[in-house]
Amino acid sequence: MNLEIQAISGVPEITPGANLGEILQQALLESGMDTLPTDIVAVTQKIVSKAEGRIVQLSQIDPSPDAHAIGRQCSKDPRLVEVILQESRRILRIRGEVIICETHHGFICANAGVDRSNIDGGDAVSLLPRDPDRSARQLAHRLGCGIIVTDTFGRPWRDGLLDLAIGIARVPPLLDYRGQLDPQGYPLQATALAAVDALAAAAGLAMGKVSKTPAARIRGYAWTETASNIQTLLRPYAKDLFL
Amino acid sequence: MNLEIQAISGVPEITPGANLGEILQQALLESGMDTLPTDIVAVTQKIVSKAEGRIVQLSQIDPSPDAHAIGRQCSKDPRLVEVILQESRRILRIRGEVIICETHHGFICANAGVDRSNIDGGDAVSLLPRDPDRSARQLAHRLGCGIIVTDTFGRPWRDGLLDLAIGIARVPPLLDYRGQLDPQGYPLQATALAAVDALAAAAGLAMGKVSKTPAARIRGYAWTETASNIQTLLRPYAKDLFL
Repeated sequence: MNLEIQAISGVPEITPGANLGEILQQALLESGMDTLPTDIVAVTQKIVSKAEGRIVQLSQIDPSPDAHAIGRQCSKDPRLVEVILQESRRILRIRGEVIICETHHGFICANAGVDRSNIDGGDAVSLLPRDPDRSARQLAHRLGCGIIVTDTFGRPWRDGLLDLAIGIARVPPLLDYRGQLDPQGYPLQATALAAVDALAAAAGLAMGKVSKTPAARIRGYAWTETASNIQTLLRPYAKDLFL
Repeated sequence: MNLEIQAISGVPEITPGANLGEILQQALLESGMDTLPTDIVAVTQKIVSKAEGRIVQLSQIDPSPDAHAIGRQCSKDPRLVEVILQESRRILRIRGEVIICETHHGFICANAGVDRSNIDGGDAVSLLPRDPDRSARQLAHRLGCGIIVTDTFGRPWRDGLLDLAIGIARVPPLLDYRGQLDPQGYPLQATALAAVDALAAAAGLAMGKVSKTPAARIRGYAWTETASNIQTLLRPYAKDLFL
């Protein structure tokens, strides 16, 4: 397989209400990049959230007593903590300045995905899209290809962040080898690769964090269209060995 | 950035003592693929382990009482459990048929990386290389490019496996943005991407599991040579929030 992952330049600053699909189409056109139905376009959560108006001004937040207490505990603005609590299904760990949450979608990540970087305006923070799969489906419809919405995650045991998929359309979440035989004829028993996470991780590198290229085109990955959703990759809370 | 990740075909079955660097050079040549010093070649743990003779015949293993007990608990061959115990610094979880271990290198993974797939011979299993960074350095010296030795890992919270880096040479483990400003001028505080893991994950997709292409060439990733090692990515046991 020959994968090609190319950052898409020319995406302007995204504002609430922007038609992201149209903007990406324009950026692709101006970059001289086409999209085939077998391509996948990866886009950062940040531009999806901006287009969907998922931006909150901390000056408009009135923190609860819980938010004040946690804010004192981890040296965070209690208004920011309040937003994090509102975005969380449960809080898993608080240590130092780190709050690890399970979001309402079921993602486990720092600060429930509430983020300050790459946001215009002094006290604005961005929230994750309400339904990143739906966001992905809308973009897929417009661009006529597969879509992965990415976000940057920390992880247990290993330092360094990875971009992972938080919303997908058309692309199957897994590349599933279960039941197939390896070249020695031994059946592969537990092998299903998290394909959309692998693609998101590489797209995250290609996009970078400071290059104003919050989208990338992935070409060469072989996939078959399915009615996919990201929940497939989220292990149920009760089944996890490390929660 | 424009990443290109191409599987390398023509790698024959690897036997103990094989000169893997020479074999990869030959496969690249026959595939009409050159390598630039700025390229990175990803190779699976499996072929490195085979070349280094890290193969054990279960018929030659005499399981300890502990191995028998754990084998009964999780329905595994006690000889296989014995090998897993020998490869482990500690056992973290046993549930169902799953044994999660910390290897002597510090990797946290199922079965301490002891694996049956893609191995010739009925009761043979492969072990991780003793020092995957050293294995990577040897290949880097021969091929004149960056090297990532990959292995396939499960992970907490999310289903689906990802290929990650277990040994690296020349390539820095992290793509570190800390201290840089985002396009809005906000300093990026906690952003260092695990670049070699992102590249390993995408290379794992490109290589596949059943295609006899256990290596891939990565072109287009911008990096500067360093004396790198994988330990940089392994969070100390005491610092982890989920152990």
